[in-house]
Amino acid sequence: MPQGSDTRRDVGAALRSASHVTIASHVDPDGDAIGSCLGLSHALDSAGVPNVVLLSAGDQVSATYEFLPGAERMKPPGQELDPDVFVSLDSPRLGRLGAAETAARAARTLIMIDHHPDAAKEGALNHFDSSAAATGAMVWKLLPDLGVRPNPAIATCLYTALLTDTGRFSYANTTPETLRLAADMTDAGAHPHDIYTAVYENRSASAQQLVGMTLSRVTLANRGRVAYSWVTDEDLTSLGARPDEAENLIDFIRTLGGVDAVLLAKVEQTTVRASMRAKSDVDVGGVARALGGGGHRAAAGFTHSGDLASLLDTVLPMLPGGRT
Amino acid sequence: MPQGSDTRRDVGAALRSASHVTIASHVDPDGDAIGSCLGLSHALDSAGVPNVVLLSAGDQVSATYEFLPGAERMKPPGQELDPDVFVSLDSPRLGRLGAAETAARAARTLIMIDHHPDAAKEGALNHFDSSAAATGAMVWKLLPDLGVRPNPAIATCLYTALLTDTGRFSYANTTPETLRLAADMTDAGAHPHDIYTAVYENRSASAQQLVGMTLSRVTLANRGRVAYSWVTDEDLTSLGARPDEAENLIDFIRTLGGVDAVLLAKVEQTTVRASMRAKSDVDVGGVARALGGGGHRAAAGFTHSGDLASLLDTVLPMLPGGRT
Repeated sequence: MPQGSDTRRDVGAALRSASHVTIASHVDPDGDAIGSCLGLSHALDSAGVPNVVLLSAGDQVSATYEFLPGAERMKPPGQELDPDVFVSLDSPRLGRLGAAETAARAARTLIMIDHHPDAAKEGALNHFDSSAAATGAMVWKLLPDLGVRPNPAIATCLYTALLTDTGRFSYANTTPETLRLAADMTDAGAHPHDIYTAVYENRSASAQQLVGMTLSRVTLANRGRVAYSWVTDEDLTSLGARPDEAENLIDFIRTLGGVDAVLLAKVEQTTVRASMRAKSDVDVGGVARALGGGGHRAAAGFTHSGDLASLLDTVLPMLPGGRT
Repeated sequence: MPQGSDTRRDVGAALRSASHVTIASHVDPDGDAIGSCLGLSHALDSAGVPNVVLLSAGDQVSATYEFLPGAERMKPPGQELDPDVFVSLDSPRLGRLGAAETAARAARTLIMIDHHPDAAKEGALNHFDSSAAATGAMVWKLLPDLGVRPNPAIATCLYTALLTDTGRFSYANTTPETLRLAADMTDAGAHPHDIYTAVYENRSASAQQLVGMTLSRVTLANRGRVAYSWVTDEDLTSLGARPDEAENLIDFIRTLGGVDAVLLAKVEQTTVRASMRAKSDVDVGGVARALGGGGHRAAAGFTHSGDLASLLDTVLPMLPGGRT
């Protein structure tokens, strides 16, 4: 992709000559958002470019990613609202930056780096590559353009980005290149075992009880083609679990074989938030959009006004096996 | 390791000139055992060398690995007890071959290929490499010596071996080389997403309920330094789960953070089989050996005569935090 390489060189030049760089990613930051922000921050440190990493107001680095070098750098926007260069990472639109959007729009030079297929060119420089497994992989490939050699801090942050955005090398974006980048990052000082343990084997006792409860409730519907489960606000309270500990519960439900789709319902006071994952070539994104939500073909969600029973009455007929 | 390369060349020569090859691995075959046997079988097919893969009597290919190309080839020993060349894969001792041991000892040329650190040289050719992440990785590196180019069947079987023996790229044996071999196998036609889904996201409903039940029971002991859970024969019966579906339950328990060791007890009629995993630098192998069992420093097990309560009374004082 020659255009991409050109843009990458321009991005590298703009960053190297910046007097100050502000880095931010989308609200509710995941491993790729946090990892790519911190990876770029460490790289700019190496290049001698002063930089800060903004977190959207109201967000915090989840406990899962506190092990990353530099995690303490991520802070909500303060007085630094007039940056020279602003880099938006892993965010397809500036509107997804939350409170950091103001700083982005105030910057002299705005750079967007993203791998989402629907990314909108809102920057002065837009480095987009939807074939990249993670935005962290794009940051890694930017290092030569920054004149920076990888170091363990950079490698650890970007390996974490790659690991989490490929579902620990399980999604279809796990290509030979993905695995070779992971190897290169490991050569540079990332420790796969330590990172895996920190991300996937560091659950709290209450979070683990929550998984157990969710799996015990898994119910087959639509003649065995759909599986669903649920957690309620009361469950979180009774187990002493934080809401963010319910985030990846659906990944446990999807370990069930033989179904076309899985659904997790998070039951709140008057609404239910539903997450869906396709396990065959089912378009759960279309179902979500029809119910006012959104997402991808294989991973989507929506919010339903009502209780669990009415949610199931609404959504199950729209999923495989739901109509005769 | 020049000696290893020499041996590998000798192994390749012996296999290419064989009139017939019998392949087998250890009893209770795991992903590396099955994957490396089938990978070598496909490679010998490509080399035009007739071959069979033996399964130990009483064993069967678990449903998890039935997706592997050639899985139907694996059969208990029949009349083929006088092989030209016999290859023992992933088995540190011939005694671990179960019913296939007889054929191994009757072979004109016996070859052992293994990555366990305690492998015993019982073959005419012993190709051992304890730095290999999986025996499947050793088979992959043998392909040039066999004059065989990788194909999708070989790559799928050996990627599965590598994936499972590295705990999906989570264990300390996940090195840059491990990840590059996985990349090469993917180039050759292994599909990481499909293989991951088949191995890790294809549980039966009863197996999933079993995970839920086990996680719901997780209990902290030894001032929070040890977590344990249990399943009983009655649990398996009531959920309709097969015994092999309880095999990797401990991997779910170990997702708990902040503990030094985890223990899963499988409660049978008059005995309890205990599995332990270290999460810090604890030698659970030493504890297991002291109780008549065995294993590695980080993964070990033993069988206790008595019930769950007496097991816990016995083992907990020997684990971290158990003595004041």
